[in-house]
Amino acid sequence: MKRIITIGREFGSGGRTIAKMTGEKLGIPVYDNELLTEIAKESGLAKEYISEKTEDTSLGSFIARGLSSAGNYRQVTLEEYLWQAQRKVILDLARKEPCIIVGRCADYILRDRDDCLKVFIYASMEKRAERIVSVYGDESEESPERRLRDKDKRRGAFYNYNTDMKWGDPHNYHICLDSGNLGLEACRDILCGEWERR
Amino acid sequence: MKRIITIGREFGSGGRTIAKMTGEKLGIPVYDNELLTEIAKESGLAKEYISEKTEDTSLGSFIARGLSSAGNYRQVTLEEYLWQAQRKVILDLARKEPCIIVGRCADYILRDRDDCLKVFIYASMEKRAERIVSVYGDESEESPERRLRDKDKRRGAFYNYNTDMKWGDPHNYHICLDSGNLGLEACRDILCGEWERR
Repeated sequence: MKRIITIGREFGSGGRTIAKMTGEKLGIPVYDNELLTEIAKESGLAKEYISEKTEDTSLGSFIARGLSSAGNYRQVTLEEYLWQAQRKVILDLARKEPCIIVGRCADYILRDRDDCLKVFIYASMEKRAERIVSVYGDESEESPERRLRDKDKRRGAFYNYNTDMKWGDPHNYHICLDSGNLGLEACRDILCGEWERR
Repeated sequence: MKRIITIGREFGSGGRTIAKMTGEKLGIPVYDNELLTEIAKESGLAKEYISEKTEDTSLGSFIARGLSSAGNYRQVTLEEYLWQAQRKVILDLARKEPCIIVGRCADYILRDRDDCLKVFIYASMEKRAERIVSVYGDESEESPERRLRDKDKRRGAFYNYNTDMKWGDPHNYHICLDSGNLGLEACRDILCGEWERR
């Protein structure tokens, strides 16, 4: 019996949309940006600050902080403090009720629960570039491919740093789906089917 | 509309069994060891020889042959000859009728067809070790983990060498499933569902 679905996703793969569609069909809540509100409450820090310092943190500043741990104790502690807040929020949500949690290493944080269906959503660079231009517009000065690579790099770095595992390695997930080929509805149907089968 | 399913799989993941179960439910043929017979016919070479020289070839001999291409023309040609025979057999099968093809880089060989559902089946080392001991026995002098690593290495080397892509990278497939967690029936149901949905 599964009670929780965690969804890791490449930027532009539609993973967040698949989460919402799946949550609607199953009648269970989806935590994506809502997690930020909860982490803000838990930590007492501003949402904007958390957003910047957690999943989409820049690789450069992250590594710099890691390396400067000896001489710069307070900054490292803040990162750890945030990770602990995020961890507590995710563990509490999973304990409370069946739900879907998007991103933020939830698959790793909930690794000791065997009622957790771990999902990864990805797509080709081409399909993702099409999608971010149609969803977010093409106002950016950077090419869509560059934005995708940058965002993937940040998510990957955040995941790898906190989990000691490799983001997007199928072995960390139970189901990996190419949303660009299958389509968002098919992904939703596969997840709902697996949820109901158990 | 999908007409072909290709299934790449880690040794001991039950990928071959999932292929058979899926083929039975859909009423379409499954080509696994049957491919060897066809490649033997096409190439005029003995099945045992092909088996040794294709998918489960040892990494050592494969690399040695690649490197010795300048001085040892005939051996390299034989490998290429076999690859061409394998390629032709798989292209012909896919043209003839809807079917499931297990292993042998079929996903790559059929990459230009958009009616091909590309699947990868994997499982944790622990689950696969359990499975190979129960299916193949534990008579071997080598530990199950060692046998798994050896076999994965060979399959990976064969795939990477012939395709210039990375075996088991989710981006090469449309659906990747952890058979150890989901179970073989669930994997079959997901594949049949996706086949029938289209």
